[in-house]
Amino acid sequence: MSDLSRCSLNTATVKHATLTEAVEAAASAGMGAVGLWRHQVQESGAGTARKIVEDAGLRVSSLCRGGFLTATSAEGIREAVADNERALIEAAEVGTSELVFVVGGLPGSAPEAPPSPGTDRDLVATRRRVADRLADLAPVAEKHGVRIVLEPLHPMFAADRAVVSTLGQALDLAAPFDARTVGVVVDTYHVWWDPALEAAIQRAGREGRIAGYQVCDWNLPFAPAALNSRGHVGDGYIDFATVSRWVAEAGYTGDVETEIFNEEIWAAPPAETAATVGARFAQHVLPHL
Amino acid sequence: MSDLSRCSLNTATVKHATLTEAVEAAASAGMGAVGLWRHQVQESGAGTARKIVEDAGLRVSSLCRGGFLTATSAEGIREAVADNERALIEAAEVGTSELVFVVGGLPGSAPEAPPSPGTDRDLVATRRRVADRLADLAPVAEKHGVRIVLEPLHPMFAADRAVVSTLGQALDLAAPFDARTVGVVVDTYHVWWDPALEAAIQRAGREGRIAGYQVCDWNLPFAPAALNSRGHVGDGYIDFATVSRWVAEAGYTGDVETEIFNEEIWAAPPAETAATVGARFAQHVLPHL
Repeated sequence: MSDLSRCSLNTATVKHATLTEAVEAAASAGMGAVGLWRHQVQESGAGTARKIVEDAGLRVSSLCRGGFLTATSAEGIREAVADNERALIEAAEVGTSELVFVVGGLPGSAPEAPPSPGTDRDLVATRRRVADRLADLAPVAEKHGVRIVLEPLHPMFAADRAVVSTLGQALDLAAPFDARTVGVVVDTYHVWWDPALEAAIQRAGREGRIAGYQVCDWNLPFAPAALNSRGHVGDGYIDFATVSRWVAEAGYTGDVETEIFNEEIWAAPPAETAATVGARFAQHVLPHL
Repeated sequence: MSDLSRCSLNTATVKHATLTEAVEAAASAGMGAVGLWRHQVQESGAGTARKIVEDAGLRVSSLCRGGFLTATSAEGIREAVADNERALIEAAEVGTSELVFVVGGLPGSAPEAPPSPGTDRDLVATRRRVADRLADLAPVAEKHGVRIVLEPLHPMFAADRAVVSTLGQALDLAAPFDARTVGVVVDTYHVWWDPALEAAIQRAGREGRIAGYQVCDWNLPFAPAALNSRGHVGDGYIDFATVSRWVAEAGYTGDVETEIFNEEIWAAPPAETAATVGARFAQHVLPHL
């Protein structure tokens, strides 16, 4: 039996399971950790959520997600900072030091929808505001002992979900801050295509900023909702041997989360999904770590 | 009336029109050029196609497309080189110096289809083969007086259509060759999201490699066939003022092709589409050139 102690089940992969069911599925499959989402933690309360995970002998590898930093109005900015402080506190309370940030899209955009009349297309200024909000939030993160973990999203989501599109850009945004305060996550789905990926992973390792490694595959054709096109590791086009080797060579020794958004996988029993996640991790990722 | 002399209608935008119909639509709208596709040129013969365009008082801004350089077998490589030589000759015969190259996806991939059992996921090696084929083809291009114009495709097409995904990567691939032999095209749809875009356009300008500027918008939601999600300039999320300014500041003075793949636009009368293309160019692009 393979050692799945570094394998983590991000609970979005078993979206329709309760927290208890997801944790049981991960533990039964032999995994060492789970990645949680804020809405789950809020539902049960952070203390209860932490106990559910710890009682099963697991770790919390990360909390998803803070971010949404692109607002232009003073009120929108205040709300974003306040909500991210709550998220940082939740992360600490539920027992993880890593809060994943999805930074948000162009102001006035909506996920997979046409622009509204008020959409602000100034991508350069939007990205500058992300840097400004990180400057606001870094001291807050430091105070709570939680790391802001920037997640570059695939460029297909640059308009409507996240204006941070490459690992290099995430590292540039992180650069002004201590590596214990602002890090990055390498999610294969989002970055596998990048001709600068090897160099960016090396840089992230040198700078001590690799806060997470997430895996899932690039499936084609796209699902009707493009976000849900992710697949089990091994079902799509990604070369996990190479990317996993780069991450390992950069010195990463932490958990490897599988995070899949896919309607078919969501319809499967959580225990079956967790077993597949574990088996694919053992086959395609673990030998290269 | 705006000056549309730099505005070019790529005939893929009016897919169901004959060459004569497409040229008439572009000329009636006041445009100065058309961008052609090989199958059209082959149907009528390059000489006839050239005459149709010249008789209407237009230029051929570019020919689409060569490329598909990722084959692994000796036979596949020979075929790719031979077919690209035919394409270079066709470009010269039809009266353009610019042959757009789409380099192809991972071997064994098919457009918007799951991987086949024989799919080769080694993206790094696939990209290396593209460089090797360019070395084979550069002297051929030079001989025929036609430039190989590398088109980076959006990273959402990296698996199945083109492993060249950023303008910077295209410039790295072009670097070993004379700028009159290997250039790049800036297509807003494919590169608008890139945090390194301004720097890459500046570099392309400095190196004399900007061989074309193509525009169309980033529409959401994606069409059922993702390739066909492009929209008329102004309908989506792209900041054409900024990107057009960067291209102009980099010294580009050539034609600006509108190339749209979109089922609804294909269903519209070609003259109506050409009028819209001209109006959107005048409104969103021309003031920033």
